Amino acid sequence: MFRFEVTHTDGHARRGVLTTAHGRVQTPAFMPVGTRGAVKAVTHRDLADLGAEIILGNTYHLHLRPGDDLIARAGGLHAFIGWPHPILTDSGGYQVFSLAAMRKVTDDRVEFRSHLDGALCVLSPEKATDIQSQLGSDIAMVLDECPPAVATVSDPDFCAMQKSGSDTVVTAMRRSARWAARARARFLQLRNDSTTAPDVIVTSPGQAQFGIVQGGTDCDLRTESVQRTIEIGFDGYAIGGLSVGEPVDVMYAVVAHTAPLLPDGQPRYLMGTGMPDDLVECVARGIDMFDCVLPTRNARNGQLLTRGGVLVIKNAQYAEDRDPPDLGCGCYTCRHFSRAYLRHLYMSQEMTAATLLSVHNLYFYLDLMRRIRDAISFGTFERLRSEFHQTFSRRQCST
Amino acid sequence: MFRFEVTHTDGHARRGVLTTAHGRVQTPAFMPVGTRGAVKAVTHRDLADLGAEIILGNTYHLHLRPGDDLIARAGGLHAFIGWPHPILTDSGGYQVFSLAAMRKVTDDRVEFRSHLDGALCVLSPEKATDIQSQLGSDIAMVLDECPPAVATVSDPDFCAMQKSGSDTVVTAMRRSARWAARARARFLQLRNDSTTAPDVIVTSPGQAQFGIVQGGTDCDLRTESVQRTIEIGFDGYAIGGLSVGEPVDVMYAVVAHTAPLLPDGQPRYLMGTGMPDDLVECVARGIDMFDCVLPTRNARNGQLLTRGGVLVIKNAQYAEDRDPPDLGCGCYTCRHFSRAYLRHLYMSQEMTAATLLSVHNLYFYLDLMRRIRDAISFGTFERLRSEFHQTFSRRQCST
Repeated sequence: MFRFEVTHTDGHARRGVLTTAHGRVQTPAFMPVGTRGAVKAVTHRDLADLGAEIILGNTYHLHLRPGDDLIARAGGLHAFIGWPHPILTDSGGYQVFSLAAMRKVTDDRVEFRSHLDGALCVLSPEKATDIQSQLGSDIAMVLDECPPAVATVSDPDFCAMQKSGSDTVVTAMRRSARWAARARARFLQLRNDSTTAPDVIVTSPGQAQFGIVQGGTDCDLRTESVQRTIEIGFDGYAIGGLSVGEPVDVMYAVVAHTAPLLPDGQPRYLMGTGMPDDLVECVARGIDMFDCVLPTRNARNGQLLTRGGVLVIKNAQYAEDRDPPDLGCGCYTCRHFSRAYLRHLYMSQEMTAATLLSVHNLYFYLDLMRRIRDAISFGTFERLRSEFHQTFSRRQCST
Repeated sequence: MFRFEVTHTDGHARRGVLTTAHGRVQTPAFMPVGTRGAVKAVTHRDLADLGAEIILGNTYHLHLRPGDDLIARAGGLHAFIGWPHPILTDSGGYQVFSLAAMRKVTDDRVEFRSHLDGALCVLSPEKATDIQSQLGSDIAMVLDECPPAVATVSDPDFCAMQKSGSDTVVTAMRRSARWAARARARFLQLRNDSTTAPDVIVTSPGQAQFGIVQGGTDCDLRTESVQRTIEIGFDGYAIGGLSVGEPVDVMYAVVAHTAPLLPDGQPRYLMGTGMPDDLVECVARGIDMFDCVLPTRNARNGQLLTRGGVLVIKNAQYAEDRDPPDLGCGCYTCRHFSRAYLRHLYMSQEMTAATLLSVHNLYFYLDLMRRIRDAISFGTFERLRSEFHQTFSRRQCST
């Protein structure tokens, strides 16, 4: 059922098609994040209209509320949330390591307390696989250990700090690899004979499973992680543990090192990244799939991503600005509304501000991916890349 | 420019067409409330899709923020908010008497403090007319004095309390009539020679103006108010000062008394009402236009209005309920989502819950008006009315 085909290449950039039990996804693809079964502030209708072909659901959140048992009884996540198109679920690992109140990791499993009500919960490679089997996503992720970021861009001595944190990174990478083997075994057990696990409802028999490469910013560790993960054998491979505070150049270097080590014929997914220029740069290094909360989270904070950079809508300079957020943008928001009106809605704390800004930001990401795919087909990706950087800046736009 | 034509009658119920500078509105019409230039939690696209032909904007809120001067410089409210269809604006009176922190009413004007920042503001019949002229709505309302509700349904001695409050009601009604004459004079001055008011930008030359009948629940006062208001002469007439806590039977009686006193050939607008059964009952008594925050406000509080009554989505009984909110409803929400999913979104405080519940509730109101209009055309309004009451209840539904 699950297939991936690379249809065009341009340098290291690849265009392809992912075929899942719930439909096809053109790659490079950006997956809007629907943490609790809804992409915040937009409807499924808006999403489909924006051209989103796949969304991401968070295993940690859905497991805690409303519960994967309840979702399985409703027929799985697609049926429960009324989204008939592809869905990828993460393993819950990242949230356990970033959101949960208490956390105790052993080789066997991780114990933590729910951020909702403090209830004691357990996640293991097998349990994370079972939960996602009940959710019935099209792509499930293995549970990995996400070591805390050892440094941030603002730390002056990034490399030294990175070094001192490397023991944690090695331990987490090797444990993640052992967990990946257990997750794969459990996944194949459920696929081949689900009667051996009578407590687990397999809601999407065509589900695929991706492994995750860890290893921080150390290229040797990344190489080792790739080898261990490929050896197990997955339907696709993700690069995890990036976009956690390291400088972008370091992230780009790790991606450039890691992506070519992964099997050519399988999809490569960079988890949790990033700014629009990160997407362009990581496509250039061979990545096929992305997810990030940035377009929707920034929208709720009044930040619009535009060709020129970040537009902070509350700024007084926009109070009487009749231009759309992004001149030449074809999204619903830019076709109908002025910066002045959007600023008014944001300042008045109207929910519609979050909706209209999210619609624009998601369009910006999804349209960028469309243009990237077309450029790869026509062999003009490098031109798009350089044109993109000529106008886009991570800083606030001046206009 | 502004025209109203009654095309069908069925008993006291009337079907008609209102023609404004920004398009036609079929009556009886329900106007979703867009307090600050946006109907809360839904986009204009959702609204148009729901069949809303006219929305209401609040003069008080828009005057305070972003300001009618700013909106006038943007070309008026239609241009500023990107809604090209008809808009009615209230006069701001109701909000001054319900929201503002301090309030001092004289025959000349009302002084109050903004609920946003405590700034001292002034509203007079002329000023309310000027503000709405700058907003450029299709229908402007005169400033009226809204006396506080003197009793609520739960008060056992409603009639006695009503009596003791009647001095206030008489004073407010007569002052409102004097204010209405001043508002009309100002309106005609702006229409006929706007150069006499160089500070006011007339953004919609085709604007119409409605008078408002006051008089509380005293039918003699209502008769006097109707006479005084008709004598001035307006493009349409509203019934104000109802839905402020009186029992529904009293409201229905006042509407039944007042509506037939108004000119047959002009639209009749019942302000701020109400529950779906109120709409049916007041159409039966000759009302053409309604507005109410109820469908959107109740949606944000997790209450769905259905054929059977009010469905409180947070109730545990819906946790695994795969039915749509209202069986047989054709709205986007009911066509795609289960009670279980909507409950999950509401319990998780996802903004999308407010959107999806608002879409359903607005559809319920707008579809009811469509069915009412059709029934009036076919002479079957009484059948619709009795069928409606057979299933609809103001209480929580049992299923």
